[in-house]
Amino acid sequence: MGLIDRIADASGEFLLFAVTPPRSTTAGDRAQEIAETTLARLRPLGLDGLVLYDIADESARNPAERPFPFLPTLDPADFLTENLTSWSAPVVVYRAVGKYSPAELGTWFAEQDPTRVSAVLVGAASSDSRPRTSLAEAQALAAEANPALLVGGVAIPERHSRRDDEHLRLLAKQDAGSRFFVTQVVYDVNAAKNLVSDYHHACHERGSAAAPIVFTFTVCGSTRTLEFLRWLGIDVPRWIENDLARATDPLEASYRLALAAATDLIAYCRDRGVPFGINVESVSNRRVEIDTAVRLAGHIGAHLRR
Amino acid sequence: MGLIDRIADASGEFLLFAVTPPRSTTAGDRAQEIAETTLARLRPLGLDGLVLYDIADESARNPAERPFPFLPTLDPADFLTENLTSWSAPVVVYRAVGKYSPAELGTWFAEQDPTRVSAVLVGAASSDSRPRTSLAEAQALAAEANPALLVGGVAIPERHSRRDDEHLRLLAKQDAGSRFFVTQVVYDVNAAKNLVSDYHHACHERGSAAAPIVFTFTVCGSTRTLEFLRWLGIDVPRWIENDLARATDPLEASYRLALAAATDLIAYCRDRGVPFGINVESVSNRRVEIDTAVRLAGHIGAHLRR
Repeated sequence: MGLIDRIADASGEFLLFAVTPPRSTTAGDRAQEIAETTLARLRPLGLDGLVLYDIADESARNPAERPFPFLPTLDPADFLTENLTSWSAPVVVYRAVGKYSPAELGTWFAEQDPTRVSAVLVGAASSDSRPRTSLAEAQALAAEANPALLVGGVAIPERHSRRDDEHLRLLAKQDAGSRFFVTQVVYDVNAAKNLVSDYHHACHERGSAAAPIVFTFTVCGSTRTLEFLRWLGIDVPRWIENDLARATDPLEASYRLALAAATDLIAYCRDRGVPFGINVESVSNRRVEIDTAVRLAGHIGAHLRR
Repeated sequence: MGLIDRIADASGEFLLFAVTPPRSTTAGDRAQEIAETTLARLRPLGLDGLVLYDIADESARNPAERPFPFLPTLDPADFLTENLTSWSAPVVVYRAVGKYSPAELGTWFAEQDPTRVSAVLVGAASSDSRPRTSLAEAQALAAEANPALLVGGVAIPERHSRRDDEHLRLLAKQDAGSRFFVTQVVYDVNAAKNLVSDYHHACHERGSAAAPIVFTFTVCGSTRTLEFLRWLGIDVPRWIENDLARATDPLEASYRLALAAATDLIAYCRDRGVPFGINVESVSNRRVEIDTAVRLAGHIGAHLRR
């Protein structure tokens, strides 16, 4: 059973790998080379789908200095159609909806093959920014332009830790058409369980089926990557920060920590009949971190019931 | 190797079970009966030691209504000498030092056999109360009256979650003579790891050996017991509260949760060379909860390297 069916019937247990498209300054041949290297690296994993991120400049959200400079990247939809032509499996394309006009989004939604492509809609990063399309508008546009297209949303356990209402946001997104949710990188397993638990009980109380929640994991091989994770708003528990700061091999230590977190969350979800998926990404573009993230995806994937 | 040696050389991996003495209104024969029933229940566990709590009225600490009324209990030192005479293994006696005069405490310290008894000194529950002896005075008295007596202190991960300085309190207690620390009941494994991690790194930085930290676990068979845990200041993560509230058998569910938490913390400590012990208690005095706590101690104990 493929990704689209596993989302549509909420059976979950699928494996995704997320890729950030190359910088927008990357010329055609080089973009193609990057695409082919990436696919060659990922093919042995037997992924259920590829995730393509849509990077927005989030400096409006966080006044602290960005550990890595913001560099615009190729549009994931363009990268898919122009460079990832040899990838025939499903793709989950992120849409930072504030970057696009309603007409652009509507056209894109209409053109997608819903048996192969799904979209994750992400609202503007900050209430200060002026989005060209709001999340609510984008959700309505997708439903109108391509009713069969599976649309997902983001789930942020960190927001639940601060405000206790992220499960209500998920329910509202679900009412607006979201069929699955993808988290930020998870380092705080407790926060993830709290969100999943509150969401599930709320679904149960209103008698609606729960949508699969896709947990994202990564590795972290350096202090700079860790700083970047924090800048992105990811809660890294103090003990994990201490472990990574003191490890002789932080990359390997983070690999083991991510694997333990994934194993814990998988057992948690299965015990409670909670549908879930797994997404792995490499936050860094260092070769060794990418290879370790791929190894992590392989290890976690072997434990999924696919 | 016995408990006292495992504390003294910080090898850890010991199993304790904590008992609250009967109410102070309990007459002699009845107190003896309770003592014998308790020991009969605990003997099959092959404990490394028995912990005797010293209950203080903590209503000054928490203005919210106490879910169970406060009822004074027999002095643990008296309960030990008068009713637990058939228990020959080591005993860890709590001393809520604010309840006693310096003379009373000094005499008690002097009388203890340090090859069998150790003491956990607990300071006054609230800064409003007027302790008869302060924690610092009690620590000094113990060192003077009986230098060989192993003295421990309490470790509160919840305080670390709020103030980030509990590891510094542990170091200060260690400077004042504490050789081990006992936590409150642990439901928030992440908070416990954060404290242990910060404490260990601080020990490493100042070149001092880390003292064993004893993690306390319990079961929770009812909403009332859960409310009482919260009243005591124990952080119960939201997902655990949800699980217990919805479980068809909350006692069994809490047993599995406590076992998973203990297994996680044991692996965490061993991987990092952190000395630890395990303490199990029954917060409730319902027979079925006590039996389940005993079963929990047996299960965890089987995994310790004793």
